Amino acid sequence: MRELEVALGERSYPILVGSGLLARCDPLARLARGRAVAVVSDDTVAPLYGGALRALLAPHAAALIDVVLPAGESNKHWGTLNRVFDALLEARFDRDALIVALGGGVVGDVAGFAAAVYQRGIDFVQVPTTLLAQVDSSVGGKTGINHPAGKNMIGAFHQPRLVLIDVDTLRTLPDRELSAGLAEVLKHGAIADPDYFDAVERTLPGLRARDPQALVDVVARSCEIKADVVARDEREGGLRAILNFGHTFGHAIEAGMGYGTWLHGEAVGAGMVLAADLSHRVGLVDPDVPARLRAAVASAGLPVRAPEWPLQRWVELMSVDKKARAGVPRFVLLERLGAARLAKVSDDALTRTLAACAA
Amino acid sequence: MRELEVALGERSYPILVGSGLLARCDPLARLARGRAVAVVSDDTVAPLYGGALRALLAPHAAALIDVVLPAGESNKHWGTLNRVFDALLEARFDRDALIVALGGGVVGDVAGFAAAVYQRGIDFVQVPTTLLAQVDSSVGGKTGINHPAGKNMIGAFHQPRLVLIDVDTLRTLPDRELSAGLAEVLKHGAIADPDYFDAVERTLPGLRARDPQALVDVVARSCEIKADVVARDEREGGLRAILNFGHTFGHAIEAGMGYGTWLHGEAVGAGMVLAADLSHRVGLVDPDVPARLRAAVASAGLPVRAPEWPLQRWVELMSVDKKARAGVPRFVLLERLGAARLAKVSDDALTRTLAACAA
Repeated sequence: MRELEVALGERSYPILVGSGLLARCDPLARLARGRAVAVVSDDTVAPLYGGALRALLAPHAAALIDVVLPAGESNKHWGTLNRVFDALLEARFDRDALIVALGGGVVGDVAGFAAAVYQRGIDFVQVPTTLLAQVDSSVGGKTGINHPAGKNMIGAFHQPRLVLIDVDTLRTLPDRELSAGLAEVLKHGAIADPDYFDAVERTLPGLRARDPQALVDVVARSCEIKADVVARDEREGGLRAILNFGHTFGHAIEAGMGYGTWLHGEAVGAGMVLAADLSHRVGLVDPDVPARLRAAVASAGLPVRAPEWPLQRWVELMSVDKKARAGVPRFVLLERLGAARLAKVSDDALTRTLAACAA
Repeated sequence: MRELEVALGERSYPILVGSGLLARCDPLARLARGRAVAVVSDDTVAPLYGGALRALLAPHAAALIDVVLPAGESNKHWGTLNRVFDALLEARFDRDALIVALGGGVVGDVAGFAAAVYQRGIDFVQVPTTLLAQVDSSVGGKTGINHPAGKNMIGAFHQPRLVLIDVDTLRTLPDRELSAGLAEVLKHGAIADPDYFDAVERTLPGLRARDPQALVDVVARSCEIKADVVARDEREGGLRAILNFGHTFGHAIEAGMGYGTWLHGEAVGAGMVLAADLSHRVGLVDPDVPARLRAAVASAGLPVRAPEWPLQRWVELMSVDKKARAGVPRFVLLERLGAARLAKVSDDALTRTLAACAA
């Protein structure tokens, strides 16, 4: 088992990464001891791993309830969130209660947001079961729900007390979702660590074959990179924005296609290809950088071409992005493979990138 | 004009108290300069003071929209909150936007919670227009909405950037609501400052007659007491709980009667009488303390007798209170007039208090 720490002063918390952790995890047992605990999951994940988690928690918790939400991004809305509140209030859970989020990014975001605002904030633990959630959404404290006008528009920063990652849960993950998670893994290399990018590039076949050691290594290193960025910029004042490499385009693709048509990681995969191309158009990197990124995205099993929309449609979709300032989208561009920064770009450069990379 | 500060490190903010501030307030103008601003109000207050606030903000804001919510505690729910999100998203407001909450406690709580979770948190300003909001809910950063199972069950701690209190707005406040605000004023004296309790007791007739100087003095001192408690315990770990003197009973009355039947301040008025009586039953204070508090509550125009319910009903209503621990209600009791602390009490003492004070 690997143990990392997200260093946020009194809100610091450990991330545990390993195989077999759902069978035994003393730190989680300690955290649950004597408390009212709600396991929030969805109807895909609960039948697979709910029993193991329940067996782990039952000897320690003072009360234990299950809240099973309907699976899928289309359910990441107020109605689903409210089911968590209903269950907690029905069980008379107070401010000492603990929420354990068992599932992918949607479950983590909804359950985490429920914890952020239930009685103005209670503790929660992330037990992510998709690669995307393990390397990305479970770390960093971002929680929230979607609004018809935009993704994650309603939410809060609320740090978990513990992140428990058992890579064994990836055995049941559909191929398409595993690939979606690899988009964020490639992103971590691209924005922060060229050696890691190399290593991931080489390991892609092993990762796609669910080699446990390869998964533990990659999940741990990706969490480390994300935790480091988050620790230096918890509330996204500046640095943290580099984690949105590929996301300005990616969010536009998700919104424009209708949420759920493309997986988030698929949209980010194509979005990174666009962002790397744009980095070249504005003169930051040579053409081999976007070419190499495109090859890696393809090799991860992800789309490399974005939908073909007029420039105006792209700008409109991107201007509601939360990173926009005064309605002007901002892009995370590569300075080289392994380093990124925020930038505004001309319509001209954007037009050329879209002509080149949007099918 | 009086200026106080709520000392919370980098989240510190000023409270301005005076007469005529809606006509001119440079600190608010500075805060609004160049930003997208949403004035969130309700259909009672907007026609009275929306125009003045709009005239103050319009020369400075880059964009200015009005969001007018339906008035009343019964509208403090998700649907109303969502109208704020709809308006902000429709206007394409981003994370630099500013919400100005103009109205009573409901508007402040809903607009403040909207600010807490819109795009994971934006700035907001409180412009409270009821006495209750001026001396209580606008200071301290508590925001939220009700759930059918309990008041303020969903919410966040989110500090405003500025609280602007113009006591002239109290001229249009109905008598019943003015009295409700006086409950919190009496509470501040009872829990924190015996001299202030004396002064308020003497000034009650002037306050009820809306004497501007008396109002400025009392609002400023009450804000000072509340700000001091909040600064020492922002997230209600301990000390801040003393602000809930009268509230464990009060919340039970509000919930049991159905929200909106009694005003919050009315329920707190009767709740303080119960809590003072209970303080006597457990041997903390002589009988003259509850007697004096009861007389002051009556003189403020507030009810002094609670509804007559069986003990079990009271306990049930109180056990969902957010201050409950493991389902056991905790009470704020007086140690003397001017000092309070949290305590559990026996069913026996509680029964005797209910027999004495619940009609």
